[in-house]
Amino acid sequence: MGTQRKFGRLLPAPENFVPPSLAAEIGAHGMNDARRDFLRKSFAAASAALASGSLLAADGDPAILQPQKHATSLGLPVAHAPYGQPSRHEASLQRRESPGLTRKRESSISFTPLQGLFGIITPNGLHFERHHAGWHDIDPAGHRLMINGLVASPKVYTIGELMRLPSVSRMHFIECGANSAMDWAGPAVPSVQYTHGMLSCCEFTGVPLSLLLEHCGIDAARAKWILAEGADGASLTRSIPIERALDDAIVAWGMNGEMLRPENGYPLRLVVPGVQGVCWVKWLRRLEVGDAPYATREESTQYLDLMPNGLQRQYSIIQECKSVITSPSGGQRLLDRGYYNITGLAWSGRGKIARVDVSIDGGRNWQQARLESPVLPKCLTRFNIDWAWDGKPYVLQSRATDETGHVQPKIGALRAMRGTRSVYHNNAIQSWQVSAAGEVANVQIS
Amino acid sequence: MGTQRKFGRLLPAPENFVPPSLAAEIGAHGMNDARRDFLRKSFAAASAALASGSLLAADGDPAILQPQKHATSLGLPVAHAPYGQPSRHEASLQRRESPGLTRKRESSISFTPLQGLFGIITPNGLHFERHHAGWHDIDPAGHRLMINGLVASPKVYTIGELMRLPSVSRMHFIECGANSAMDWAGPAVPSVQYTHGMLSCCEFTGVPLSLLLEHCGIDAARAKWILAEGADGASLTRSIPIERALDDAIVAWGMNGEMLRPENGYPLRLVVPGVQGVCWVKWLRRLEVGDAPYATREESTQYLDLMPNGLQRQYSIIQECKSVITSPSGGQRLLDRGYYNITGLAWSGRGKIARVDVSIDGGRNWQQARLESPVLPKCLTRFNIDWAWDGKPYVLQSRATDETGHVQPKIGALRAMRGTRSVYHNNAIQSWQVSAAGEVANVQIS
Repeated sequence: MGTQRKFGRLLPAPENFVPPSLAAEIGAHGMNDARRDFLRKSFAAASAALASGSLLAADGDPAILQPQKHATSLGLPVAHAPYGQPSRHEASLQRRESPGLTRKRESSISFTPLQGLFGIITPNGLHFERHHAGWHDIDPAGHRLMINGLVASPKVYTIGELMRLPSVSRMHFIECGANSAMDWAGPAVPSVQYTHGMLSCCEFTGVPLSLLLEHCGIDAARAKWILAEGADGASLTRSIPIERALDDAIVAWGMNGEMLRPENGYPLRLVVPGVQGVCWVKWLRRLEVGDAPYATREESTQYLDLMPNGLQRQYSIIQECKSVITSPSGGQRLLDRGYYNITGLAWSGRGKIARVDVSIDGGRNWQQARLESPVLPKCLTRFNIDWAWDGKPYVLQSRATDETGHVQPKIGALRAMRGTRSVYHNNAIQSWQVSAAGEVANVQIS
Repeated sequence: MGTQRKFGRLLPAPENFVPPSLAAEIGAHGMNDARRDFLRKSFAAASAALASGSLLAADGDPAILQPQKHATSLGLPVAHAPYGQPSRHEASLQRRESPGLTRKRESSISFTPLQGLFGIITPNGLHFERHHAGWHDIDPAGHRLMINGLVASPKVYTIGELMRLPSVSRMHFIECGANSAMDWAGPAVPSVQYTHGMLSCCEFTGVPLSLLLEHCGIDAARAKWILAEGADGASLTRSIPIERALDDAIVAWGMNGEMLRPENGYPLRLVVPGVQGVCWVKWLRRLEVGDAPYATREESTQYLDLMPNGLQRQYSIIQECKSVITSPSGGQRLLDRGYYNITGLAWSGRGKIARVDVSIDGGRNWQQARLESPVLPKCLTRFNIDWAWDGKPYVLQSRATDETGHVQPKIGALRAMRGTRSVYHNNAIQSWQVSAAGEVANVQIS
């Protein structure tokens, strides 16, 4: 499935990979004695394999210690690429479709390669896609945003007008309500790109929606829902509860410092922090204030939770507390015993992540992971934890808890509540099985 | 100089631009009554010009209210670009050289277009460049990092080995020590891209340098400096004080979630938070631990502060507290009276930004700006403040204060200390003059 790369992060490391012989850490990074002791012990064996003090290259190729061409020649000039691109050696790290998942590629999904990413920011070029009628590169000069409905003064804004208004910049995750959908009934896909890759995280910039609504004179007594409508061929429409609209929603043009990408809604998209991605309407052209939800196609026949009794739960839009280990993860292979940095992502549509615990034995025992700062509300949080692999089989899991006390459930608990025929809102604990051969596979522990 | 765009952010707005008639804000965003009152008053006049309740397009082109092609046709499929690109309408937003600044483009600079960016994250494609012998796209499979000098066990690491180690992810600014150099003796360049564009901010991921040094058994009693060496044709070398190396320095491979870009050091660069960019050695291949600085070419003949008495100050590597208004800024034009969101960036190599004040009268009166969260140490901080332009001339300034109490100086105070022949470490307050015609120009107020 193209999830492998040549070196470390994905762990199908170079064939002659030499394990690190990390002895200890100094105290400057807040490591306690127990962790220092763990690191010392976990590398003791590996150290023996490393030629003491040797400066020979690990892969036995003496050529690489000779002066290399790039060290003895003039390189490329500045602004060779006025807008830069990734290294040619990173070409395999791309968003990928799941062929056959939908009947047409214009209404399909491309997944973010979480297994190869670091930190919390998703590069704009690798942001996941989910379209309902394809994407267009809309000319902002002709684009307008209309606000109508229960307002004293309906208005039409140009992009220029919006961009003069007071703006805010905030980092938030966006997750499709159908993320992890393929695994509701059992482990169906091989890698974290496909289990969790409808997930990205960016710094968004725009004008608070609350400010625009006030500008138009919102009828505060009667306004209960907002209809958001996109300018694509699907005229995608979703109803947003007024509480979400007046809280932290943003009419955004900026994404990771630059203008939105065309496939992510350029020049305008609605940002509804903590809420499923379909409500973040792209190519936003209209907001209508109403006193009831609009029961549009995308909320009457899609994005519903089918319950065991056959009824559908509607407007369950918050993405609940969730986490996943991104490395080691499905499709990767551990080549050597010894130290690994288990790393992953946690998030909650209700606020900040409070803690993440990691299990290596399928959920019987848990250890608390380190959270990277900043820990922001409705934003991805990166976690890391040390692990020394001794060559035996293991099942790796992560379990997030958010600041409201919500603990990420096991898949069995979710199925007990919602059956096996649901599609959306699967926030279950993910299990990765490590075989004695070091192969990592998607499994489920109820 | 190509700094203008068609719509709002750069303020040369559409020719038939209609001022927003913002009436008020609701309380949810923490706006106090005074600010609400200001906004109400500053838009009162502009409101009169807006046809009440009109849904006609602002530019008078009725065609745009007709169904548009993108709203009535199927668009492009997902993964049309496996690694996405900006809109074709954003092509003018690029990093730009300053022709003739250096004799060869391989040892030149490309500047980040700060006037068109939002928030604090710099997109990787627009990260500034400064090379000494050009850039290469180095194959990570053949790249090594050697650590030698005052260590018990000198070692050579592959990229795969490094990426297995415990990693951290942190957001930091990087600023070239020569940023704002061209304005030491007077305002010389027209726009913020050239006055301050050797500045970027990313989330970096890598292994703490302190951990690697401990791994190699650093001689803590004798180690005082680290020599960092790059694999480019310049073999660029800089001495790093041991205090910085053991504090928060990172041997980094990740940048905004993905691998470093080739022109920014792929596959490995040193990250030394708060310190001038030349010390963040790109294509990092060697770290040598020593008991004294190495007096390399790039620290003996360059990156020095020439003092009025003719002596040079050496190893002044911290980037002090600084800020700049990015919009409105030089080369932009205000087309209408009325509301503007003054926005900019503040940063300090000593820690967090404590406050930013903005003046519209060349420094006689100051108002405190709003800081966007998160406010992180040695990281850019975005500030915003409301302004209503009445069509008269003004001089806009921002003044940052960091958590150590350091206040960004006026250019006159800097010159009194360091003369007019310095090049590096100009952290003076920037002044933008707004003429009665709305033209914004780079000026200096001593």
